[in-house]
Amino acid sequence: MPITRTLQELADHLGGQTMGDPSLIITGLGTLDHAKEGQITFLANPRYAAKVETTNASAIVMTAAANGFGRNGIVVTNPHLAFAKLLALFTHRKRTAKGVMTGAFIGERVTMGADVSVYPGAYIGDGVSIGDRATIHANVNLYEGVTLGDDVTLHAGVSVREGSRIGNRVTIHNGSVIGGDGFGYAPDGDGWFKTPQIGVVIIEDDVEIGANSTVDRAALETTRIGRGTKIDNLVQIAHNCQIGENCIIVAQAGIAGSTKLGKHVTLGGQVAIVDHLVIGDNAMISGQSGVFNNVAAGAVLSGTPAIQHQSRLKSAAVFPHLPEMRKTLSKLGSRMTQVEERLGAQPDSL
Amino acid sequence: MPITRTLQELADHLGGQTMGDPSLIITGLGTLDHAKEGQITFLANPRYAAKVETTNASAIVMTAAANGFGRNGIVVTNPHLAFAKLLALFTHRKRTAKGVMTGAFIGERVTMGADVSVYPGAYIGDGVSIGDRATIHANVNLYEGVTLGDDVTLHAGVSVREGSRIGNRVTIHNGSVIGGDGFGYAPDGDGWFKTPQIGVVIIEDDVEIGANSTVDRAALETTRIGRGTKIDNLVQIAHNCQIGENCIIVAQAGIAGSTKLGKHVTLGGQVAIVDHLVIGDNAMISGQSGVFNNVAAGAVLSGTPAIQHQSRLKSAAVFPHLPEMRKTLSKLGSRMTQVEERLGAQPDSL
Amino acid sequence: MPITRTLQELADHLGGQTMGDPSLIITGLGTLDHAKEGQITFLANPRYAAKVETTNASAIVMTAAANGFGRNGIVVTNPHLAFAKLLALFTHRKRTAKGVMTGAFIGERVTMGADVSVYPGAYIGDGVSIGDRATIHANVNLYEGVTLGDDVTLHAGVSVREGSRIGNRVTIHNGSVIGGDGFGYAPDGDGWFKTPQIGVVIIEDDVEIGANSTVDRAALETTRIGRGTKIDNLVQIAHNCQIGENCIIVAQAGIAGSTKLGKHVTLGGQVAIVDHLVIGDNAMISGQSGVFNNVAAGAVLSGTPAIQHQSRLKSAAVFPHLPEMRKTLSKLGSRMTQVEERLGAQPDSL
Repeated sequence: MPITRTLQELADHLGGQTMGDPSLIITGLGTLDHAKEGQITFLANPRYAAKVETTNASAIVMTAAANGFGRNGIVVTNPHLAFAKLLALFTHRKRTAKGVMTGAFIGERVTMGADVSVYPGAYIGDGVSIGDRATIHANVNLYEGVTLGDDVTLHAGVSVREGSRIGNRVTIHNGSVIGGDGFGYAPDGDGWFKTPQIGVVIIEDDVEIGANSTVDRAALETTRIGRGTKIDNLVQIAHNCQIGENCIIVAQAGIAGSTKLGKHVTLGGQVAIVDHLVIGDNAMISGQSGVFNNVAAGAVLSGTPAIQHQSRLKSAAVFPHLPEMRKTLSKLGSRMTQVEERLGAQPDSL
Repeated sequence: MPITRTLQELADHLGGQTMGDPSLIITGLGTLDHAKEGQITFLANPRYAAKVETTNASAIVMTAAANGFGRNGIVVTNPHLAFAKLLALFTHRKRTAKGVMTGAFIGERVTMGADVSVYPGAYIGDGVSIGDRATIHANVNLYEGVTLGDDVTLHAGVSVREGSRIGNRVTIHNGSVIGGDGFGYAPDGDGWFKTPQIGVVIIEDDVEIGANSTVDRAALETTRIGRGTKIDNLVQIAHNCQIGENCIIVAQAGIAGSTKLGKHVTLGGQVAIVDHLVIGDNAMISGQSGVFNNVAAGAVLSGTPAIQHQSRLKSAAVFPHLPEMRKTLSKLGSRMTQVEERLGAQPDSL
Repeated sequence: MPITRTLQELADHLGGQTMGDPSLIITGLGTLDHAKEGQITFLANPRYAAKVETTNASAIVMTAAANGFGRNGIVVTNPHLAFAKLLALFTHRKRTAKGVMTGAFIGERVTMGADVSVYPGAYIGDGVSIGDRATIHANVNLYEGVTLGDDVTLHAGVSVREGSRIGNRVTIHNGSVIGGDGFGYAPDGDGWFKTPQIGVVIIEDDVEIGANSTVDRAALETTRIGRGTKIDNLVQIAHNCQIGENCIIVAQAGIAGSTKLGKHVTLGGQVAIVDHLVIGDNAMISGQSGVFNNVAAGAVLSGTPAIQHQSRLKSAAVFPHLPEMRKTLSKLGSRMTQVEERLGAQPDSL
């Protein structure tokens, strides 16, 4: 059955104020361009302010600063967040616990909370502990001694290695690997002697990890992903990294061993950070940057090696002029020599 | 039984003209260096033209411009393509449908075409639709409502998420993930509120995707991979991207959300493209480049930020000279000041 | 039962000399800061030399050059290696062969050595050959004709494609794909004709490969990973590559087709190497570098395009000064023109 709400109910959900008719029935949501009668839309980008007057939507979510054109709507401080919340509300599907399905493999001494779903082909190793309402999709692999909190979703093909601990409300998308061995070898003659990787990975509450990412177990102690951090696809987190709370790590970024990120750090796509660094709170590293030194809290860096983003933009703008600069420099040297000779001075060597 | 063909049959297959004896029997193919009697080889690179005379092959595929040295052969316009076609011909193995094998998990309301193979450990969710001659390898995961066209091959460990639609003659190699959630969050205080990702992925006909790549579902609508496009390993395609027809995307490249590629675009390995851009038809982006702006049709770019490839090559050649340029510049400034002082002028500050 | 050894036994194991009491009983190991009585620790970094006197450890592994402060210990040439060896000794767990477990899928004509473990959900294709003491974790996929040597460990979710050959004592972590098709297409009108990839992958003895990496099969012949080479997570090795012995390839690096690495080459994270190059023995390529030319043995390179590392560091240090250099250059040009005009010379055009 489709979900419907009054405008007042939605305003209460969002913590906003209604404009117009609070009893208006809303049946869903759409974009400014494509919403239909009965739906609610939102204005986040002021560029589209004029569409508020003409949209077919029955109501608009906007800030107090926007012109409502007398339409029905809801005033909020952050329309983008409000849209995400409404989308979550209208697309919510009640979860049905499926229990342990035929074809799942359950080891010994496994404990499971209430209302779990374990799909066919999932392998649950000895001594694993699974919290309430966990969803373990097909062909997931949980090695010995893994613990999962409540409301965890592991998508098909995820592997969690021995002893890793995953908190509450964590979602991991398909194919990601938690707790693979860290990459540690000691030189031994011409070859390499493997340093045993006997630590674990701890993933705190409310973390989401994309598809085919890898988080390595610590050599001795703990690799940690802080509460609320969101990690995209194909990201590499090496052994012993300490990732703070509420960080954003975009696809294909890689963080080398023992590096520590503060809170609310943002790494763009394909960023690389070398080992044993400290990245301060709220730092932002632009896509493809390479970080070779510690980063101060709040810094905004880009490039390889990463420097202040604004400085790099200016230098990058000069980069295409290097050939002409070199030529100019050479000519100036010749002209200078001529001038010096005319003046009877001894030209310096260039 | 090994495949044999006459030279004439092969020429007809390739749309080429025979040189020499059209009734010659060909039993296979090899390289100029390693082909044996009875085999056919090919000359694509003019550097190896002299080997045409000495190769042990019984026939050579070449262009009309090459010297055949009186050997048997086939004249074509594109020997590289002809070689690929002959290799396909001689290595073709008749596919045997295995049906649904013991150990595959089949949900409810699943429809299957004729002559499918579904291997053990494959999980086929409720409402999945599978076309004729599909090959679903072991431990593949098809979530609810996925549709596959005819002649699709999904290699072991592939996951296709709910509602994704895959066309005809699509091959996806091991471990790739189609339709994982896009990476979308709204700032919410210190943390992040997940924007539900309720769109789908559509993969058109004749697409091939390598191993461990990820193509995310759209937030609301569709992420699309155009007909004939080929994607290598470990590539990231973010939510809402629109990839045109016949593009080539090399390993470890990443494309951020909502970016649109035209037709026949080539992205080198490890290229990154930021979100919401438009890349014109036939553009070529060199490996490791970072693209931060729209790209015109036919442009050839490289570097981060990407600029015209030829311009970048010239600037990159100057880059190692920067320290000496800076020193020269500093010396010139001093010499200039001396000259100006001699002339009684007021030196400008540098 | 916990492992204990005398100091003398450990010294013999390491090929080192005892200091102090050779009969001292050692029960484990820890760091200089955290080791407890009965444990052994090590001093590798001279910065921490003073801790040798104060650590709670009962013995210290160190070089002959370090001050032992009269403590018990072991003198070795490489404390880092010694630590790895001691860690391996004290954390060693005896492997228990589990045989072929219920829920594993075994094809026809499969041969297995002694004392194997094959977990549930593993798919072993027809004609596969598995050596002694192999551990095949859950949901591993071995295609037709794969061969594994002795003491091989394949972690959950690994796929090894048809005909690939894996040596002795090879470990492959979760989700990696060995033998996926190489990325080869011939232009065919507006589209692409797939070049069949009919070669194989050979992985020699003592190789370790991380999680979610990909090693493609050769087009015709062999992609080879040399003995003792260690490959991290999310690495791409393209078709026909020849990787030498004892190389180190850090996470997210990518090597394009037919490139050949010598022995003991080190590639940092996110390095890219284009196709058909030769990289000499012992070369070291810094993280994120892009290599477009052959590399001499022993070279140390960085940057894109990669140049001598020391040279690049110097140029990178100048990079942030480019805007000021351009401005200075422009001003110098003006000043030069003024000077030339004063001298009655004909100013050159800049």
